[in-house]
Amino acid sequence: MEKPFVIGMDMGGTNTVFGVVDARGNVVSKSAIKTGNHTDVNLYIQDLHTELIKLIDATGGVDKFKGIGVGAPNGNYYTGNIEFAPNLPWKGVVPFAQLMSDKFGIPTALTNDANAAALGEMTYGVARGMKHFIMITLGTGVGSGIIIDGKLVYGHDGFAGELGHVTAIRNNGRLCGCGKSGCLETYASATGVARSAREILETSTKVSLLRNIAVESITSKDVFDAAMQGDEVAKEIFNYTGKILGECLADFVAFSAPEAIVLFGGLTKAGDLILNPIVENMEKNLLPIWRGKVKVLFSELKEADAAILGASSLAWEL
Amino acid sequence: MEKPFVIGMDMGGTNTVFGVVDARGNVVSKSAIKTGNHTDVNLYIQDLHTELIKLIDATGGVDKFKGIGVGAPNGNYYTGNIEFAPNLPWKGVVPFAQLMSDKFGIPTALTNDANAAALGEMTYGVARGMKHFIMITLGTGVGSGIIIDGKLVYGHDGFAGELGHVTAIRNNGRLCGCGKSGCLETYASATGVARSAREILETSTKVSLLRNIAVESITSKDVFDAAMQGDEVAKEIFNYTGKILGECLADFVAFSAPEAIVLFGGLTKAGDLILNPIVENMEKNLLPIWRGKVKVLFSELKEADAAILGASSLAWEL
Repeated sequence: MEKPFVIGMDMGGTNTVFGVVDARGNVVSKSAIKTGNHTDVNLYIQDLHTELIKLIDATGGVDKFKGIGVGAPNGNYYTGNIEFAPNLPWKGVVPFAQLMSDKFGIPTALTNDANAAALGEMTYGVARGMKHFIMITLGTGVGSGIIIDGKLVYGHDGFAGELGHVTAIRNNGRLCGCGKSGCLETYASATGVARSAREILETSTKVSLLRNIAVESITSKDVFDAAMQGDEVAKEIFNYTGKILGECLADFVAFSAPEAIVLFGGLTKAGDLILNPIVENMEKNLLPIWRGKVKVLFSELKEADAAILGASSLAWEL
Repeated sequence: MEKPFVIGMDMGGTNTVFGVVDARGNVVSKSAIKTGNHTDVNLYIQDLHTELIKLIDATGGVDKFKGIGVGAPNGNYYTGNIEFAPNLPWKGVVPFAQLMSDKFGIPTALTNDANAAALGEMTYGVARGMKHFIMITLGTGVGSGIIIDGKLVYGHDGFAGELGHVTAIRNNGRLCGCGKSGCLETYASATGVARSAREILETSTKVSLLRNIAVESITSKDVFDAAMQGDEVAKEIFNYTGKILGECLADFVAFSAPEAIVLFGGLTKAGDLILNPIVENMEKNLLPIWRGKVKVLFSELKEADAAILGASSLAWEL
């Protein structure tokens, strides 16, 4: 029987978005539910079923679906479990893929959100046709998905590709939510940019539009808006962020010699303000054999659909 | 026709060692020539042929050989070329695998020496049965070979796995032969240990057996000998070296989530003097999910045979 559709589903700490995707990468239909409301994963799946089955039935029913692909924080591809996800309401180890396939009668595969994004980029995005690239997601945190020989790197235990937690600043680095200090995530994420803004404003007396905002409530969006108006402090913040990220990217290149690094997520909206310092500092820190050869690209997937498309890519492999 | 043998060949800047290897990993016979004497690669291959053909003929002739595997500095698996190797007498791009197979009539594959070591470890060493591990060679320089899903990572261009050139010390790091500063290789190699010794002796007045040696001629062997006699400065040098290496290893784990890291080469002779600080500092810098789970192992291959065995592993794949 022909199964021309898959489900792509992206689970965040606040919202879960999901959609029906066809073989050409069209998001045929989509919807969402709240994640955070459900302290019991079974009630979450119940509510998800209520919404998702409508989309499935409108597309010919369960028999038309090859699989469900899920991107979830701390999702483990090997086991199908979500394991100790700090930002989700259910704790410990949750056998999520199993629960889903039991409920829907559709095979379900699961990985973390950044891995799903990398698969989406390879299948539908700027990395089409590439066998070797590294996806870096610059959102609330920093995630990564590594593609080598056209396949995602899962590693020995399923958790490979935690590049947001390499040590970017070795001494006196910022405390990270993971318990370590100096992690890349504490600098190159949206929250990292906001932290940089607070640091610079509190330790200097430079004039800045950002001083019109209460320092504890400054967001990366505020920094972006100020930079677009020519604010020097805001531009300095993007230079600083891009420098730290670019230095780390050079080390990543030394690992897997990718054709490209693909950046995705909120911070990429800053465009050249962040891209220029990233590229400049990556190049400075590359071995001569790689200089001028590794592309740094922004994702071209629509952010609203990218998460669904990425997760759906996983379902085609089922 | 049955082809029960391969050739493994390891090319260094000074010597080239090669041997006949059977399917069980026995080095049946071996020999060596000087590398550095030959400014013309064709004369080098001529001299190599003179010696190697004796071993081949003594083992039944060319028809008994499945392939020749070569580990060479800057060897590129994809192209079979040796490209811009700073420590070899011939410059630019040398189509070495092609020259070898033309000369011997045996298919030849080539990769860099650290990659060959990783293959050897997977086939015959402590990494037997492992699908995910990282090999770090601690010799005159620092090399690496990365195994993911049971295969070597070559990357987009064939040069993946240059972990000796990740930036270990970001600010005011030591100048590296590659032109960058702060590379892991400048600290965690035999020459790095000697540099650390000179630094500590010149910037402190601590009593040390190492002060009996002219500071510019101290080697890592001297540091090891002093440490074994209980010298505190020598032990401090190994602690410092192990700390820097351990911190970098934690970042490597975040990339590919290996089952183990295998250390090979001269510095491993220091045993627990270097292993303890490596493990301690790696653990401190790992994400909680990996703490206590990633083995750090010393190679158990005999150093004299390891290079030949490693390169020979490549030949079985031909």
